[in-house]
Amino acid sequence: MNEVELIARLVPTLPRNDSVVVPSGDDCAVLDLGSSDYILFKTDAVVEGVHFTKAVPPEKIGRKALARCLSDVAAMGGKPGSALVTLALPKDFDPNWVEGVYAGLNALATQHGVAIVGGETTINPERVLISIAMLGTVGKEHCVLRSGAKPGDAIFVTGSLGGSITGKHLDFEPRLEEARWLAQTFPLHALIDLSDGLASDLRHILKASRVGGELLSRAIPISREAKLAARAESSAKPPLLAALTDGEDFELLFTIASKDAVRLLDEWKNRFPQLPLTCIGRITAEPGLRLRESEGVRILNVHGYTHFEKP
Amino acid sequence: MNEVELIARLVPTLPRNDSVVVPSGDDCAVLDLGSSDYILFKTDAVVEGVHFTKAVPPEKIGRKALARCLSDVAAMGGKPGSALVTLALPKDFDPNWVEGVYAGLNALATQHGVAIVGGETTINPERVLISIAMLGTVGKEHCVLRSGAKPGDAIFVTGSLGGSITGKHLDFEPRLEEARWLAQTFPLHALIDLSDGLASDLRHILKASRVGGELLSRAIPISREAKLAARAESSAKPPLLAALTDGEDFELLFTIASKDAVRLLDEWKNRFPQLPLTCIGRITAEPGLRLRESEGVRILNVHGYTHFEKP
Repeated sequence: MNEVELIARLVPTLPRNDSVVVPSGDDCAVLDLGSSDYILFKTDAVVEGVHFTKAVPPEKIGRKALARCLSDVAAMGGKPGSALVTLALPKDFDPNWVEGVYAGLNALATQHGVAIVGGETTINPERVLISIAMLGTVGKEHCVLRSGAKPGDAIFVTGSLGGSITGKHLDFEPRLEEARWLAQTFPLHALIDLSDGLASDLRHILKASRVGGELLSRAIPISREAKLAARAESSAKPPLLAALTDGEDFELLFTIASKDAVRLLDEWKNRFPQLPLTCIGRITAEPGLRLRESEGVRILNVHGYTHFEKP
Repeated sequence: MNEVELIARLVPTLPRNDSVVVPSGDDCAVLDLGSSDYILFKTDAVVEGVHFTKAVPPEKIGRKALARCLSDVAAMGGKPGSALVTLALPKDFDPNWVEGVYAGLNALATQHGVAIVGGETTINPERVLISIAMLGTVGKEHCVLRSGAKPGDAIFVTGSLGGSITGKHLDFEPRLEEARWLAQTFPLHALIDLSDGLASDLRHILKASRVGGELLSRAIPISREAKLAARAESSAKPPLLAALTDGEDFELLFTIASKDAVRLLDEWKNRFPQLPLTCIGRITAEPGLRLRESEGVRILNVHGYTHFEKP
C-alpha cells in the first residue's frame, strides 16, 4: 500500500460533526462555528533535510513555514487570523537559531496581521521539524473550493512557474491579497495554490470537480529561473517541463467562466500591475489532462514532485 | 540560555491582533472570531522515545496524542470541536501501524464528538512524531484561565495522583464533561490540567495569579500505582513525592472561593460519584508553595518532571 492508497483508506474513517462544512481534501478545512464567516483550519510542517537544509538561515526557515500555511488560506479566498508554532528540536539546539526562526516568522505574520498565539517546543533528537497550525476566516459567499470547476472554464495562473528550488521556495509572497480580491470581485469556480507543481495541482482541481483540462503549452508562463537552469545544465529539465512539474511555486491556479475572462484580465492589470496573470487553458467535460502543443494534443501524464501526500 | 529563558525572550516578540483574548501562556489560546462563544486553539505533539516507545500499540499512541489536547480544552472549561493530525514518519512506515494510530484517535474523537478534518503526513526519517491541532469553543462567561486564583481560595483536584507512567498516561480519560460542568455550575477562579505534575502545574496557577499556595500533605490523593511502585522498589519515589511531582496525571486542578467548597463537594458527589474530588489546600497572599505536614510547614521546591517548556 502506498501513501495515496493509505490516505484513501483513512479518510472515510475520519469522524465528522455538524460544524464541518468542508473536511479534509481541500487547501484548508472549512468550519461553521456560528459566526458570520467560515473558519479556515490548516496545518503544515517543514522538516530539515526535506523542505530545507541546515545551510538555510533560520529567518528564512521560519518565514517559509508560515508562508506555506498562508498560501493555503489564500487558496480558499480567506484571511489569516492566528497561528500556533510547534518547534521540534534536537536537545542541544542553539537559542539564537530559534530566535532567528521566530524573527522570520514574526515578520511575515506582522506583515499579514497574523497573531502568533503560542505553540510548543518539544524534542526531535535528529533534526528540526516545524509545524504551523493556522486559523483564518472567509466570508461564506467568498469561500472558493477545488471542486467547482466547470467545462468551458478558463484556467488562470498568477506569476511564472518552475525553478522555485533556486530560491523562491524560501521567499515567495503568499498571494493573500490577490486571492481575496479575486474571490470577492469575481465568481471563481475553483482555486488552489501551487505547491506540488502545476500539473499535479491542476489534477487536484480536475479530480475534485470531476472534469478534464487542456493546457496550451505556449501560454504557460515559464520563470526566468527555470529557463536559466535549463541553459546552464544539459541534464536539467526542459523549461516547459519544469513549469509543469516543479513544486513550491505557491502561485494561484484558478478557473472562471470564460465569459468573465476578459474583464478579469482587464481589472487585474489595473489592480496588480506587477504580477502577471495568464490564461493557460480550459476545463473540458472529457476527463484527463491534455497539453496542446504546435504539433498537436498529447496526454499529460508527467507528475509534479509528489511529497508524501496529505490525508 | 535554557528553554525557560528562551521562551521568556520569545513570548514578548510574538505578534498579536484584535481577535486575541488570551495569547500564549494558558492551556489554550482564546480567540474572539465574532461568534457568541470564544474559540479555543491548541497544539500538542508526542514524540517516539519521549512520550511513547515503539512497544506501545499504535491505537494507544493515537489515543494519547488526541487525549492530551482534549485535556487542554477541558482545562479552559471548553468543548472540543475539530482536530487536524500531523503524522511525521520514517519512509518505510507500516500502513497497518498508521491505521492503528487513526483507529485509536478516531475512537476517542467519536466519543467526544470531535471531527478529524484532515492534516498531513510528512517524513521524519528517524522516529514518529504526532502533532494534533485542536479547535474548541467555550461560552464567554465560562472560560476559566490560570490567572484568577485569589487568596483564601480552596484548591481542589480530581482523581488520584502519581504513577501515571505505569499505564494511565496511555488511557486516561480527559476530564471534559467534569470541567464543563464545573465551569458552568460554579464560579471557578483558576483551572489547569495536570500534565507536568501537581507541584509544577499548581505553580503555573500561582505564578499567573500572583499568589501563593499551601498544600496539606495528608489530603493529597495518592494513586494506587504510586503506592505500589514505592512498595515494589526501594529506589522508587515515596508515594507523596510521586503524587506531587509525577507528570501526565491529566486530572483537573482548580481553585474556588472557600465559601463555595462545601456545596461543590456535595453536588459533585451526586453528579460524578465515581470520580473523587479532593480539597488539597488553599491559596495564600504570601507567594511561594508550601506543604503542611504533621511536623510543620515546609517550602515545596521539588519540581514535577519538566518537559521542554511551551512558549
